[in-house]
Amino acid sequence: MENNAFSKLRKELLDLANLSQLSSLLEWDQNVNVPSGGHRARADVMAYVAHLRHEKFVAKKFENLLRTAVESAENGKLENDESFIALKTLSDFKKAKKLPTEFVGESARLYGESYQVWVEARAKSDFLLFEPYLTRIVQAKKQEAEYLGYIKSPYDALMDNFEPGLTTEFASKIFDQLKAFMVPFVERIGSSRVKIDRGFLYEKYPIKKQSQFVRVVAEKIGFDFHKGRLDVSTHPFCQSLHSTDVRLTTRFDEKDFINQALLSVIHEVGHGLYDQGLPEEYFGTPLGESISLGIHESQSRLWENQVGRSWSFWVYFYEDLKKSFPSQLEGVSLSKFYRAINFVKPGLIRVDADEATYNLHVILRFEIERDLIEGNIEVAELPDVWSRKIKEYLDLIVPNDARGVLQDIHWSKGLFGYFPTYIVGNLYAAQFFDTARKQIRRIDSKISNGQFSELKEWLKNNIHVHGRRYSSEELLFKATGNKSTPVYFMDYIKAKYSEIYNL
Amino acid sequence: MENNAFSKLRKELLDLANLSQLSSLLEWDQNVNVPSGGHRARADVMAYVAHLRHEKFVAKKFENLLRTAVESAENGKLENDESFIALKTLSDFKKAKKLPTEFVGESARLYGESYQVWVEARAKSDFLLFEPYLTRIVQAKKQEAEYLGYIKSPYDALMDNFEPGLTTEFASKIFDQLKAFMVPFVERIGSSRVKIDRGFLYEKYPIKKQSQFVRVVAEKIGFDFHKGRLDVSTHPFCQSLHSTDVRLTTRFDEKDFINQALLSVIHEVGHGLYDQGLPEEYFGTPLGESISLGIHESQSRLWENQVGRSWSFWVYFYEDLKKSFPSQLEGVSLSKFYRAINFVKPGLIRVDADEATYNLHVILRFEIERDLIEGNIEVAELPDVWSRKIKEYLDLIVPNDARGVLQDIHWSKGLFGYFPTYIVGNLYAAQFFDTARKQIRRIDSKISNGQFSELKEWLKNNIHVHGRRYSSEELLFKATGNKSTPVYFMDYIKAKYSEIYNL
Repeated sequence: MENNAFSKLRKELLDLANLSQLSSLLEWDQNVNVPSGGHRARADVMAYVAHLRHEKFVAKKFENLLRTAVESAENGKLENDESFIALKTLSDFKKAKKLPTEFVGESARLYGESYQVWVEARAKSDFLLFEPYLTRIVQAKKQEAEYLGYIKSPYDALMDNFEPGLTTEFASKIFDQLKAFMVPFVERIGSSRVKIDRGFLYEKYPIKKQSQFVRVVAEKIGFDFHKGRLDVSTHPFCQSLHSTDVRLTTRFDEKDFINQALLSVIHEVGHGLYDQGLPEEYFGTPLGESISLGIHESQSRLWENQVGRSWSFWVYFYEDLKKSFPSQLEGVSLSKFYRAINFVKPGLIRVDADEATYNLHVILRFEIERDLIEGNIEVAELPDVWSRKIKEYLDLIVPNDARGVLQDIHWSKGLFGYFPTYIVGNLYAAQFFDTARKQIRRIDSKISNGQFSELKEWLKNNIHVHGRRYSSEELLFKATGNKSTPVYFMDYIKAKYSEIYNL
Repeated sequence: MENNAFSKLRKELLDLANLSQLSSLLEWDQNVNVPSGGHRARADVMAYVAHLRHEKFVAKKFENLLRTAVESAENGKLENDESFIALKTLSDFKKAKKLPTEFVGESARLYGESYQVWVEARAKSDFLLFEPYLTRIVQAKKQEAEYLGYIKSPYDALMDNFEPGLTTEFASKIFDQLKAFMVPFVERIGSSRVKIDRGFLYEKYPIKKQSQFVRVVAEKIGFDFHKGRLDVSTHPFCQSLHSTDVRLTTRFDEKDFINQALLSVIHEVGHGLYDQGLPEEYFGTPLGESISLGIHESQSRLWENQVGRSWSFWVYFYEDLKKSFPSQLEGVSLSKFYRAINFVKPGLIRVDADEATYNLHVILRFEIERDLIEGNIEVAELPDVWSRKIKEYLDLIVPNDARGVLQDIHWSKGLFGYFPTYIVGNLYAAQFFDTARKQIRRIDSKISNGQFSELKEWLKNNIHVHGRRYSSEELLFKATGNKSTPVYFMDYIKAKYSEIYNL
C-alpha cells in the first residue's frame, strides 16, 4: 500500500501537473488557433494560470505535505521511486522559493515590456532603442543569480535553469575546444572546389503534397499520431500536454520545402518522441519529466541531423520524394540531393545556419552572456563585440543590428543561459548516436530500409524512460560509457563534411 | 473611482471567468483536436478545472467579498451596473450553495457511468439495459429539485437551470396550444398534393468547395473571423471562450451539404453572433453573459430558419451556390431549391426533423420529463409512452428503442429540463424576427440584396448587449412589446408552409 504522506504529495503534484498542462494547451492554442482579436484575453488567462500554479507550489500547504513525505523518505518508509520523487521535488521547491515573489513579478513585467521594445528595435534595426532595456535585464539576471546562488560564476546559476549541472568553466572549456576545430574547418570547406547546386530545393513544392509527405515521414520514423498531432504555426515547435497528447507544429513555404518543413518536422518529431516516451504512470512527477533542454534538444538534433540529413535516410526516402515531386527533382540524383541538403556556408542568421556553422553562432552568444553576467563587458559594447566575433568565427561583416545583435528573441524575454543548451544538444546527439550505432547491428542498412524502430527503442530505453532520474551527465555516462565531450560531434562533422567537400 | 469592495469582487469574478474560459477551451479542444490516446488525460484535467472553479466559487473567501459588495450595493455606494452585478452574483451564489458538494460529486459519477451504459444500450437498442440507470437518474433529479426548491412543480426547479423563470404550468399551457395547432397542420401537409423533389440535395458536393462556401456565408451574415474560428467536429457546436474568441464547428458530409453543413453553420453563426455581441467590458460578470439557453437558441434558430431557409436569403445566395456547384444544381430553379430545403415529413429522429415537426419531438420529451419528475409515470413505462405519443403526434410506428426512447444523449448526462429550451428558442426566434421585420424597413429586400447588417445590429442592440440584465420574459417584452406567446411561431409556420404546400 502506498504511504499516506506520499499519496497526498502525489495528489498535489498531479494538480500542479494539470495546471502545467493547461499552460501548455493555452500556449499551443495561442500559436495555432487564437483569432487575431483574441490575443488580449488569451494573455490574461495565461498569466492567471501561471500565477495559480506558482501560488500553489510555494504555498505552506504544499510545503507541509512535501516535508512530511520527505520525512517518510528519510525514515525509510517510502519505496525507492517514491523517495526519489519526494527528494527531487524538495530540491525543485527549494529552488523556486529562492526567488522572492515580488522579484519574479517585476522581472516578468520587465521582460514583457522589453519584448515589445525589442520587436520595435529589430524592425528599425536600432540597438540603441533596446539598449536601456537590455541593461536592466542584465541587471535583473545578475540579481537572479545572486538569489539562486552559485559557487564560481554567477552565470552558472542561469545555465542551471535550463541545463542543470552545466558550469561556465566546463562549457567554456568544451566550447573553446569546439571553436578551435570548427573555425578552421569551416574555412577549409569554404575553400573547397566542390560546388553544390541546390536550386532545385527552391522550386515550387505544392503545400498539400508537402503536408502529406511530412506526415508519412513523421509516422514512419515513429511519431504516434494516436498520441499526438501535427499542425501549422509561424514558428515550428513541440508542445507536450501529456505523454498521450504531444503536439508538433511546422510551417510550409512553397519555395522551401526541405529546410522549412521537412527537416523541421523531423526535428520536432525528435522532441515529440522524447515526450511520448516519458513514462505515463509517473505523469506529474520528476520521473515523468524530461531532464533538461540540452537532452531534449539532443533528441531533436539527432533525428534531424544524424538521421534526417544522412545518406542512409535518403536511400530509403528519396524514391518516394521523387514520386511526390517528380518535376521539381527531375534529373536530380540521390547524391546531388544529399549534398544539397548538407550545403555549408557561413551566414549571419543563427536559425538559418547549417550543421557545421550553427554552433559558432551559439558560442558567440554564450561568450557574450557569460561576459555580461560576469561583468567583463557592458551592454553598450554589444554591437562591436558581435561584429568582431562574427568576423573572427565566420569571416563575415555584420551590416546592421537587425541581422546582428538584435536577431534573437531570447534576451528580450530574459532567457539568459538558454543558448548553450543548443550546443550541448548537438554534442549529446553525436555522442548518443555514436553509441547507438555501435549497439544496433547494421543500423545504416536498417535506416536505408526504413527500419527506425530499433533506434527509437534504443533512445526510449536509454533516455526517455528515465525521466529526471539521472542528471544529464549521469545519463550520458550510463548510456554511452563516457563523460560528455565534443569529440564525438567533431568526429562526426569531420567525417561527413570531409567526404562531401572532398577535403 | 470604483468602490473597493466591488473591485475585489470584480477581480474574483475575473478569476472565475478565467477558469470557465479554460473549461471552454478544454472542451472545444477535446472535440476538435485531442488525439485518440489523449482522452483519459483530458478527462482528468477537465474534472480538475471544474472542481477548482466550484471550490473557488463556494469558498468562504468569495462569500465574504460578495457579501461586502452586496452591503455596499444596499447602502447605495455602488453604481447601478455594479450593484446589479453584485446582487445577481449573490443569487447565483445562493443557488450554487443549495446543492451539497457530495450530492454534486455523486450525481456527476452517476451521469458518467450512465452515459457509458446509454452508449451500449443504444448500440444494442435495448432500453432494459439503461432502465436501472435512468431510474437512479430520475431519483437524483427529484432530489436535486428538492434541494433547489420550487413553488408548484419540482420540474420547475430543473427547467430553471437552463431557462430561468420558465414554469411547468406555463410551458404546459403554451406547448399544448402549439401541439393543438401543429398536429393537424402537419397532417394537412402530409395530405397535400404538392410533390417536392430534393434528390439534388444529396448529390456529391466536394468538401473543399463546401468549406469555402460556408465560410463565405458565415462572414457575409456577420460572423467576425477576427474574433472567432470555424473548425470541424463530429457534432456541430459553438463554444465561446470570450467575446473575442468564439469558436464554431461543423461537419461535412459529401452527400448532404445543405442540411449537414450549410444550415448548421448558419445555426452556429447565430449562437456565435450572440457571444461576439456580449459586452466585452463586462467579461466575467452577469452583464457579460447570455441570459438562458432559450434566448441563445432563439438566435441560432432565427438565423437558421427565419433567415437561412427564407426565400429572400436564397434570392441573394442561390446564384453563388449554383456557381460553386453547377453540375449538382443543373436545371434546379430557385423555387425548386427553396421548396427542397423546406420539405416537411414526420420522422422518428429529433435531430433530423424539419422546422414544422421539430417541436412535436420536443413536446413529447417535455411531457415525459415532467411526468417522471412529478411522479405520474415510471421509467419502466417509457418505451410504451414513447410509442403512443409518436403515433399520436406524428402518426408513426417506433420500430425499436434506438430509434425511440434511446435516441438522445441528454437523459444519460442528467440533463432534465433542457429539452424545453429548444422549443422556447423557436418561439422566441419567431417573436423577435416578427418585431425586427416591423422595425427594419424593407428587410426582405435587404436580405435579398445580401444586406444583413441591420438585422445583426437589431439583434445585438435589443438582445446581446444586455447580457443578463433582464430575464428572458423581461427582455422579450422590452424587445417585442409582448409577452412570450406561441402565436408568432404558429403564424410564421402557417403562412410559410401553406404557401409551399398550397394548403
